[in-house]
Parts: sequence; C-alpha cells; structure tokens
Amino acid sequence: MSETRVHYEPLRLFIVTALERLGLPHADAAVVGDLMAQAELQGSDGHGVIRLLPYARRIRAGGINLKPRIQVVQERPAMALLDGDNGMGHLVMQRAADMAVAKARTCGIGWVGSRLSNHAGPASLYARMPLAHDMIGLYFAVGNANHLPPWGGLDMLLSTNPIAVAVPAGSEPPVVLDMATTVAAYGKVKAKAQRGESMPLGWMIDRLGQPLTDPKRAGEGFLLPIGGYKGYGLALIVGLLAGTLNGAAMGRDVIDFNQDDTSVTNTGQAVMAIDVAAFGDVADFKARVDRLVRDLRSGERMPGVDRIWLPGEQSHERRAANLRDGVALPPALLKQLDAFAVEVGMAPLARTVTTKETT
Amino acid sequence: MSETRVHYEPLRLFIVTALERLGLPHADAAVVGDLMAQAELQGSDGHGVIRLLPYARRIRAGGINLKPRIQVVQERPAMALLDGDNGMGHLVMQRAADMAVAKARTCGIGWVGSRLSNHAGPASLYARMPLAHDMIGLYFAVGNANHLPPWGGLDMLLSTNPIAVAVPAGSEPPVVLDMATTVAAYGKVKAKAQRGESMPLGWMIDRLGQPLTDPKRAGEGFLLPIGGYKGYGLALIVGLLAGTLNGAAMGRDVIDFNQDDTSVTNTGQAVMAIDVAAFGDVADFKARVDRLVRDLRSGERMPGVDRIWLPGEQSHERRAANLRDGVALPPALLKQLDAFAVEVGMAPLARTVTTKETT
Repeated sequence: MSETRVHYEPLRLFIVTALERLGLPHADAAVVGDLMAQAELQGSDGHGVIRLLPYARRIRAGGINLKPRIQVVQERPAMALLDGDNGMGHLVMQRAADMAVAKARTCGIGWVGSRLSNHAGPASLYARMPLAHDMIGLYFAVGNANHLPPWGGLDMLLSTNPIAVAVPAGSEPPVVLDMATTVAAYGKVKAKAQRGESMPLGWMIDRLGQPLTDPKRAGEGFLLPIGGYKGYGLALIVGLLAGTLNGAAMGRDVIDFNQDDTSVTNTGQAVMAIDVAAFGDVADFKARVDRLVRDLRSGERMPGVDRIWLPGEQSHERRAANLRDGVALPPALLKQLDAFAVEVGMAPLARTVTTKETT
Repeated sequence: MSETRVHYEPLRLFIVTALERLGLPHADAAVVGDLMAQAELQGSDGHGVIRLLPYARRIRAGGINLKPRIQVVQERPAMALLDGDNGMGHLVMQRAADMAVAKARTCGIGWVGSRLSNHAGPASLYARMPLAHDMIGLYFAVGNANHLPPWGGLDMLLSTNPIAVAVPAGSEPPVVLDMATTVAAYGKVKAKAQRGESMPLGWMIDRLGQPLTDPKRAGEGFLLPIGGYKGYGLALIVGLLAGTLNGAAMGRDVIDFNQDDTSVTNTGQAVMAIDVAAFGDVADFKARVDRLVRDLRSGERMPGVDRIWLPGEQSHERRAANLRDGVALPPALLKQLDAFAVEVGMAPLARTVTTKETT
C-alpha cells in the first residue's frame, strides 16, 4: 500500500500561494496558510487544507471580504469586541488571541470577542496561542451550520458550538481540550458516509427520536448533544457567549456555509487568556499540572485499555510525527488540489510517496 | 396524602439560628443561611437545608474555621485570588462574586478564584449573582469527593466538577445552566438507593466497564462523564481552572468530605463576571436573548414532548412556586432538623401541613 505525504513547509507554501491567487494580500495569506497547515499537523484534518476549496468557492462568490478592516468596536481594560469586516476568520481570531494575551498580561485576564468574522479552523489553534506566554487559553465559537435542535425539539437552531481550553504544563505536553458540544462532529458523519460505514448508536437520532445509524440518511435527523439536555445547554451557552453577546449570528440567523456562499455569515467567536503568573509562581503551577497529568496517566486501567490519554496528548504526538514524516493526505483530496493548482496556474503540491508495509 | 411545607423566611431564620448556635458570627450565619434557603427555593434540594447536619458535623469536628480571615492573596485589575482561610464556602464565594462584579464593571471582565474554601452549595447560586448587575456569571468548582476516573482508567482522581453559567434576558427568565460534568450527580445515585430504585443505563459503570444499575453497588463502580472522553476532559479542565490554578486541591489531594470531617478540604472555586454593557447596548442584548429563547421554546417538538425547556427555566418556576407555597421537605429530614433543634436548644422549624389530593 502506498501513502502520500506532504511536509509542513511545502504544504504551508502551497496554501499561502493559493490564497494569494484567490486575492488575499500576502501578509494575510501567510497568516491563514500557516494556521491551516498547523491544523493539518495536529491532525485536525477536517479543518486543514481540505477547507481550501470551500474557501475558494466562497471567496469567488464574493462571500469573503479580501481586504477587511478588522476593528475594535468596544473596549475595556480586560476585554475587546472586534468587527471582523467579513474577513477570513483566521485573521480575526489571530488578532483576538494577540489582544487577549496583551490584556491578560496587564489585567490578569483578557477576553476578546468577534462579530462579522468567519470560519477559523479548529478551536484548539486559538486556545493554544496563549500557551507560549505561560497563559491558559479558552476559545468559544458559533458553528457555521445548525445541526442540533433544543432538547425535545425538532427545529435545528443550534450548531455544534465548540469549546477549546489549553493549559500549560512543565515537561508534560499542555492539556488541550477541543470538543464539539455534540457527541460527534458533523464532519465525522460525512466521513462515515464517504466510507460507506454506519454510525454508532448515540451519534444521531431521527425526527421521531429513534436512533439513526445510516449516515446517508443524516439529512433526516440531527446530531445528539453530549449528556442529553446538558450538551444542549452547553451548545446554547457557547452560542450566547460567542454569538449573541458579540452581536454575531446565533439561532435562526446562522448561515449554513455549506449551502450558501454569498451571505455574510456574521460568525461570532471569543478567545480568553488567563495569565498564570497573576495567580502565583508559574513553575510551581506547571509542576502541579505535570504531577496531575502523571497521576491520571499512570493509574490502573480498565481491562483492554492500553493507555490513558490526556486531552490533547494524541494531537501533540501527531504534531511531532507529522512534522517529521509529513502529513498523509488522501488521494481524492490531492487530486482536487492538483486541479486547483492547474486552474490558478501555480505549481502542484510537492509530495513524497512511500510504500507502507501491509500488516 | 399530606405534605409538609416550610416558607422561605422561617427556613432562612432556622438555618441562620442553627449556624449561630454552631458558633458562626451572626453576619456570617446570615449570609450562609440565606444562600442555603435560596438553594431550597430553586429546587437544589441536595445543596439546601439537607447540608445543615453534615456542616454541623464538620464544624463540631473542627473541620471548619468559624472566624476565617478571608484574604486577597493575588490581585490584578481583572482578577483576584482569595484565601478562604478554611471558612464556610458560601462566605468565600459571596466575596468572590462581589469582587468579580466590581472588577467587571471597570475592566469588562472579572475573575476571582479561591483556595482554602469549602463546599458552597449549588453552582448556579454564584453564577446568578452577576445577573442583578446586567452581567453574565460563570462558576467553576472542584467537587468535594472523587467519583470519576480518567477515561479508560479505574482510579477515581476526578470529581463531578460542576460548571454553571447564567445569562440575563429581558422579559424571559435568565438562561441558567448548572451541570455536573458527569451524566448523573452523585446525590442522584444516593436518592435512587434511598428509594430502592435502580439507576438508568449510562449513569455508572463497574470496574470492568459494564453497566452498573444497582445504586446499592455504587461503591463498586464510578460515575460516567457526559459524552465519554469529552466529559472526562471537561471535568479535568474545570479542576485545573478552579483547583490547580488557585493552589487548591485537585486529583489525589481532594478530601472526601463524606468520609473525613477534620482535614482541611482546600476547596477551589472560581467566579467570573462579564459586563454586558462593555459589549454594547444592554437592552438590545436582552432583546436578542429573549428572541432566541422564544425561538427555541416555540419550535416543533418531538412526539410525546409537552414542552421545550430552556436551561434554568424549571428552577425559575420552582423558585416562584416555592416562594408562594413554601418548600416541601421530606419527613425524614424534618425529623433530623427537629432533633437538631432540641439538641442546640432552639425552636423547631415552623411548618405548614397541607393535605394533598391523591391523584
């Protein structure tokens, strides 16, 4: 069996060039391209280079402002609200994270929300940004398509609204939780459909409340929130904090960006940074996180469990492996990217084909 | 069938007097008693007057500091860290909420954490405090007994670490989420055992990972987190934010306050306030929350569903009903409270016995 891998630097360059061909200024293309390549590195493949073609479609349809004037519209010492001017979400969120860190440095805590932003890739990218400053990062976002009704209801008024939190450790990897408030993200349903597999019980139900396991029938049902009414509550709260509070879309105002390439999505997100140094000695905190991580990892395991994972640990290992070996991209995606390269007149994505032992 | 009800004011006075007899200064007893009576009003019966006797046991064993000097040990414009000096948790959290609101008023956001605090009752009490100031409130706490192992593990290193968030609305009740990060709170398991009922699938598993439905065997297994590994991640993150960050107990350092009345619990909690006015016009925000609430409530329902509830709406209705009719207390609890009253030489709890139509 052969496997095609793409290294980080050529991948990043390919995305940056592609975004420039689509009309993004170089500096903006560089920010977005880097974040999209980082998403691939950490294994967030649903939010990496696979998004290039949907972004291209929306950009060409006029659904993204290529020269946004991202502005602070509200500000207090520990908070700001950004108007993303319908630019690429990555640009708005990079700015939000930078501001949240700066505010946390002086105030102990910083919170920056956005309106008129767009899809920005995996939540953990932005929760992780404060880590380099010995800060805890949190990220909340309104998803760009509603797949979830309120508990007991049928109208899909809520999205998978994700939460991500990143906590720095010492010699251990940071603890990074990145979760949709539904049992499965919608991308996982699409993947099951593509592979012709059925879904496990508990991912979706139909309009009668019966389990739905055929991913081809996904349009007839909806995702289940985690913990039943609790996940519904979490999805709603995240939407209130990241959407309603910022004057961004929430509920019936959410635009389904799979169906609509032109309407302004008015996406809302929020990044928070907590400066560990404000609470005490940073090295001491990190040592306590390390000890906790080791206690959790080294405990007794259930029969059949090989290893206890900490949140973010698998992504952490994948990042190191992908940086070393390159990211494995599926042939169908590579073909699409090649066609796109021809179309915009740029070099194809450089890749390495390796022969993998079949086990 | 007869039902015994207790009105708010006599209930509050009873708890305040009881706490004074136990040695709390009057002003402190008044704060704690009011919050415990409020917990009953909103239907958080597991955190209301039922806690009086366990608190009394711990106070008499010397496990609570009756004259704590609650101090700010770290401070920045938008944050503070309180040392609760092992006082009653309600006192520490009331102070934390007041400070978070004051900080949010100037900084937009306020975050106040605690160490050396104690059990403080239902999470929603503190998340709700900022509401009166047109602010959003958030509360995180480390639970006072570990009932949850990491996902795939057997060592109970995590508690049900709750999250509460309260969002002000206009003419609708506020949206108030108050949830343990486990499918069921441990109190619900105890209640099933008392009633001789079995637990639904999904509440607990045994050490082999098999479903556990007999609440009398609860000691042989553990609670399941919501959404599997996601709830494990949430419980861990809440513990890091409310415990580890504050230098409070987390993981193996958590004292099981059901088993141990004397060790300092070093409970960690955090209250956050977000000033809606910092983000824009408050009336406009509330109108948008109202519209969202009505959209969710009035949507199409699944067969057999009578009503779609918003988080906190049932508590809101119960608060109004209990304020009007009094709180129904179970006979066994009333008997214990009467015995306690005799013991400390105070008047018994005034009550109303009503005859309820049997349907």
